Amino acid sequence: MDTVGVLGGMGPLATIDFMRKVLEATPAARDQDHVPMIVCSLPQIPDRTAAFRGDGDSPLDAIVACGRRLQSAGADLIVMPCNTAHLWFDDVQQQLQLPMLHLVDAALREALDLAGSDARMGLLATDATIASGLYINRRLPDAPPPNWLLPTAGEMLELVMPGIEAVKAGRLPDGQALLAAAARALAQRGADVLVLGCTEIPLVLDTAACGLPVVDATAALARQVVARCRDANRA
Amino acid sequence: MDTVGVLGGMGPLATIDFMRKVLEATPAARDQDHVPMIVCSLPQIPDRTAAFRGDGDSPLDAIVACGRRLQSAGADLIVMPCNTAHLWFDDVQQQLQLPMLHLVDAALREALDLAGSDARMGLLATDATIASGLYINRRLPDAPPPNWLLPTAGEMLELVMPGIEAVKAGRLPDGQALLAAAARALAQRGADVLVLGCTEIPLVLDTAACGLPVVDATAALARQVVARCRDANRA
Repeated sequence: MDTVGVLGGMGPLATIDFMRKVLEATPAARDQDHVPMIVCSLPQIPDRTAAFRGDGDSPLDAIVACGRRLQSAGADLIVMPCNTAHLWFDDVQQQLQLPMLHLVDAALREALDLAGSDARMGLLATDATIASGLYINRRLPDAPPPNWLLPTAGEMLELVMPGIEAVKAGRLPDGQALLAAAARALAQRGADVLVLGCTEIPLVLDTAACGLPVVDATAALARQVVARCRDANRA
Repeated sequence: MDTVGVLGGMGPLATIDFMRKVLEATPAARDQDHVPMIVCSLPQIPDRTAAFRGDGDSPLDAIVACGRRLQSAGADLIVMPCNTAHLWFDDVQQQLQLPMLHLVDAALREALDLAGSDARMGLLATDATIASGLYINRRLPDAPPPNWLLPTAGEMLELVMPGIEAVKAGRLPDGQALLAAAARALAQRGADVLVLGCTEIPLVLDTAACGLPVVDATAALARQVVARCRDANRA
């Protein structure tokens, strides 16, 4: 079976969440049925959002160094369970020369399958993820461009960013209250489905908590990893 | 900061549980405060309990190979969040030539700190862990031998092993009822503290559920990892 290399630690809780979602996506009756994973959880990688804003060092070299560790340890395939890190996806892939799966593609594919290509897709993500166009500019080769609904700038500053910070700091009830309020605002403006484009958000938000079908980008990537590794196993 | 290498996948859920306990044991306000970890979760390592019983291949070569991957990826220190794998601890350490922390030592240290060296320590663990002497033969260099209390053979067959199986199968209330009954029997025979020497047991048993102070060996190892890496950081 192919060994998945996980470029992790961005943040460390999101890495664990991704690993758990890979287990949940695997039909397994015993330990030995599970996907082999090598995980490099290096929380010292420079902050992605700060770098995007021009307030900090680029994380590219640290991400590539982490990828080389995974390569040394025998990874066949690389994933990054961090949305913002995907701003450097093309550079990382070019330097590592290993197959990589793209988190946003996995999320868009599931959103289209769930809600159809006419659906209005609400997006909850960090300021950097939204402002960089990581989601809104991404196209699947065989699908029309999605119809996006974004949080307002006020909602970003008062609900979404403080909500994500609260989750990162372990204050989960606070994070849930703030992010659910942002989700309700998107639902009121007509969102049919919510794409959760930040690894921290699904830790506190699901369909029950926000009253809309949700696509968890982390879980979508996990399901794609399992499908890919099991295909490689059968091949 | 030192990078911890985690020899994982034995089983994969226990690996994730250990990683989460490392996060919980870390005083951190942001990603960059967390301990860097490289995790090799290779569920294809042969079954440790079967090997102990003489019913399967030795896991030693696979564990060492997993350790070498961690070494290639830059781990400074190795831990194995699996009790039964510690039957091969000395061989693994000898072949890897890297510092390793011992799960049982971490648990014994916490039990001594919690209950004192005169305390009677009840042990809940798998048949293989208990019968192999993994806990009862282990000595801390600076402490007298613990005063152990074990479940009876009848309690092992009727309560402890079915309780662990129930947890592994996701039947948590059944598992809790069985394991709490085994804990009460140890308490009635005079146990002052309970050492939980199996990664599944702390998922359903805590001080509230069994009326005794408990030591979770996985959490004890996690706390020792954090203390060690943060010391290395300050040094």
